[in-house]
Amino acid sequence: MLFFIFLKNHFGNIIVPYNSDTFLYLYCSMILGIDIGGTSVKFGLVSDQGQITSSEKFDTAEWVNHDGFTPSLIATIKKYTVSFPEIKGVGIGFPGLISADRRKVIMLPNIPSVENAPIMDLLEKEFPGILIKIENDAKCAALGEYHFGEGKGSDNFMLIALGTGVGSGAIINKQLFIGARGNAMEIGHIFLSDGKTLEQHIGSNQLFKYASEVISKAPEGSTKLKGTAITGIALQKAARAGDIHAIAIYNYAGNLIGETLISVIRVLDITTILFGGGISEAFEFLAPSIKLRLDKNLPPYYSKDIVLKKASLSNDAGILGAAGLCIDLD
Amino acid sequence: MLFFIFLKNHFGNIIVPYNSDTFLYLYCSMILGIDIGGTSVKFGLVSDQGQITSSEKFDTAEWVNHDGFTPSLIATIKKYTVSFPEIKGVGIGFPGLISADRRKVIMLPNIPSVENAPIMDLLEKEFPGILIKIENDAKCAALGEYHFGEGKGSDNFMLIALGTGVGSGAIINKQLFIGARGNAMEIGHIFLSDGKTLEQHIGSNQLFKYASEVISKAPEGSTKLKGTAITGIALQKAARAGDIHAIAIYNYAGNLIGETLISVIRVLDITTILFGGGISEAFEFLAPSIKLRLDKNLPPYYSKDIVLKKASLSNDAGILGAAGLCIDLD
Repeated sequence: MLFFIFLKNHFGNIIVPYNSDTFLYLYCSMILGIDIGGTSVKFGLVSDQGQITSSEKFDTAEWVNHDGFTPSLIATIKKYTVSFPEIKGVGIGFPGLISADRRKVIMLPNIPSVENAPIMDLLEKEFPGILIKIENDAKCAALGEYHFGEGKGSDNFMLIALGTGVGSGAIINKQLFIGARGNAMEIGHIFLSDGKTLEQHIGSNQLFKYASEVISKAPEGSTKLKGTAITGIALQKAARAGDIHAIAIYNYAGNLIGETLISVIRVLDITTILFGGGISEAFEFLAPSIKLRLDKNLPPYYSKDIVLKKASLSNDAGILGAAGLCIDLD
Repeated sequence: MLFFIFLKNHFGNIIVPYNSDTFLYLYCSMILGIDIGGTSVKFGLVSDQGQITSSEKFDTAEWVNHDGFTPSLIATIKKYTVSFPEIKGVGIGFPGLISADRRKVIMLPNIPSVENAPIMDLLEKEFPGILIKIENDAKCAALGEYHFGEGKGSDNFMLIALGTGVGSGAIINKQLFIGARGNAMEIGHIFLSDGKTLEQHIGSNQLFKYASEVISKAPEGSTKLKGTAITGIALQKAARAGDIHAIAIYNYAGNLIGETLISVIRVLDITTILFGGGISEAFEFLAPSIKLRLDKNLPPYYSKDIVLKKASLSNDAGILGAAGLCIDLD
C-alpha cells in the first residue's frame, strides 16, 4: 500500500510516496560528524535532526605517531561511507586555524602533517559526490549548540569551550562569526592584566597545577583534596561537598574568564554566553565570579542583559556542530 | 540643443537628455552629512561621489545649554532642506550607543536630552520624503573611509579614532560591523594590564596631562616644551624637531594602543588598521611602538599581515561617513 507524506529534511520540503523503505532512506539520510581534538578523534553518524545514531573514538597520538593522521582519517571515513551509503556529507572540526577559503588548516600544532596540506582537495578526491566541510573545532561546538542545543533559536550568542585549551565561537545575527580572515574568537589567547593569557591560566592542565599548589598550601585537615591527584571530577566533587578551597579555585577561574569576557563583550556587543568543555561541568561554581566581574567592569547597557548558561550538548557539541556544517537548517 | 548622456548616481545608471539645468540637478543630488561631537556639530553637503560642497560648524554646548539640542538640529536641517531641495537624505553620526533598530540613541552622555528620545520618529515626521539615517560617530568615520577614503576597495579593516575619546568602527566582509546588539567596537573601554582603559590613558585630555607631567620632570634645557601648554600641535611639532620627550610620549601612547589591538585582533582576526582623530596626526610617531607591541605579542599568522595606516579623510570622515549611510554605493 502506498500513500503520500510531506517531509522536511535538509533537501527542503518534499512530497514522497511512503512505504517503509522510503521512510528508512529518508530517516537515514546521514551526515558524518568528526571532532578532532588533541587527545581523541571522535566520529558520529548524525541525522539531520541532530540525533547521533552511533559514535566511535580514536587516539589522536596513535594516528599521528603510528599510522599517519591523514591516511587514518581517510580510511576511517571510507569505512563509514562504505557501510552507510546514505551518508551525504562529512563535516570535520579541527583544533586549529582554518584558511579563509575553508580548504586548508593553516595552524595545527597537535597534528603538524595536516598543517597547510591540501586537506580539502584530498578528501574531495577520495569521496566524490559527498559534501565535505571543515571548520575550527570551537566554532563547530558553537554551531552544534545553535542547530541542536542551548543556542537553538538564539540570533546571537557566544560559546566558550573550557578544555585543555580555551576555544570560542560566536553566532552573530544567525551566522557563524568568522571575522575578517576566518579565525575570529581566539579569545583564550587574549592577555590578562598579569601578562598571561586565559589559556595559560585555566587551560585544564594549568588550572589543575594551580589547584595542586593551592591545596598543598592549605592547612592540614581543611580539605579532603589534600594528598589526592587533582582532576576535574575530584575538584567538582569537592566543590559540591562545600570544600572552600575547591570553591575558591573555581572563583579564581571565573574571575579570569570574566576579565577576558569584558574585552570580548566590548568588541562584539554580545551578552549571551554559553560554557562548554570539561571545566564547564562545574559551571555553577564558575558563574557567580564571572557575573560579579562583568557587573563590576561593564556599564548597565551590557551587564543588565548578560545571560550565562551551561552549554547543553556536552561532549557531543563538536560532532553535532561538524555535522551541522553539512546541513542546511534555515 | 539637447543630447543624451549616461550618468551614474545613487539611483543607478540613467540616461538623461542633457542640458545645463539637468546636469546641475543631477550633480547636485545631495546628501546632508552631520557629524555630532562633544565639542561641535558639523554639517556638510555631500555629493554621491564624496565631495563636500559646503560645510558649517556649530557649538554643541550652546545647542545643549541654550537653544535645546533637538530643536537646533531640526531647525538647522530645515534651513538646508529649504535652501537645497535636491537633498535626498540626511545621515547623522552621534557620539554614543545606538539602538539595535537604529531608531534611538540609547547612551549619549554629552547630550542627555537625546538619550532614549524618539529621534528618528521626530526627524522623519519633520522631513517626510527624505531618507534619514543615524549611526555611531566612529562607525560613520569607518564608513567614510570605506566609501571615500583610505579604506576604499578594502573588504576588511578597522578604524580607531583617537580624539577626546577613543572610538572605533570596523568593516568586515564589506559590511559595517555592528556586532550582536548594534554597538560593537567600543574598544576604547577595554581594560589594559594596569586596570585602566585606553581612553582613560590616551583620550586627548588624559594624554596631554600625562605629557605635562613628563615634561615637568624633564631636565631643564632638555625639551623646548618646558613651560609651554601641551597641545596636540605642540607635541607633534616637538616630535618632528626630534624632541626625545615628545617622541617618548607618542611611544607610550603607541604601546598602549598596541596592547588594546592585540585583544581586538584576536577577536576579529582583522589586520588592516586605520588611525583617525586628532592624535593620529602624529601617526608616524605612534606607528613604530604599535607595530613593535603587535609583533611581540601576536604569532606570525597575524603579525605578518598587519597593515597600519593613517586614515585619509581627516576631520571630514565623520560627515562623509554619515552621508554614506544614505548612499547605496554597491
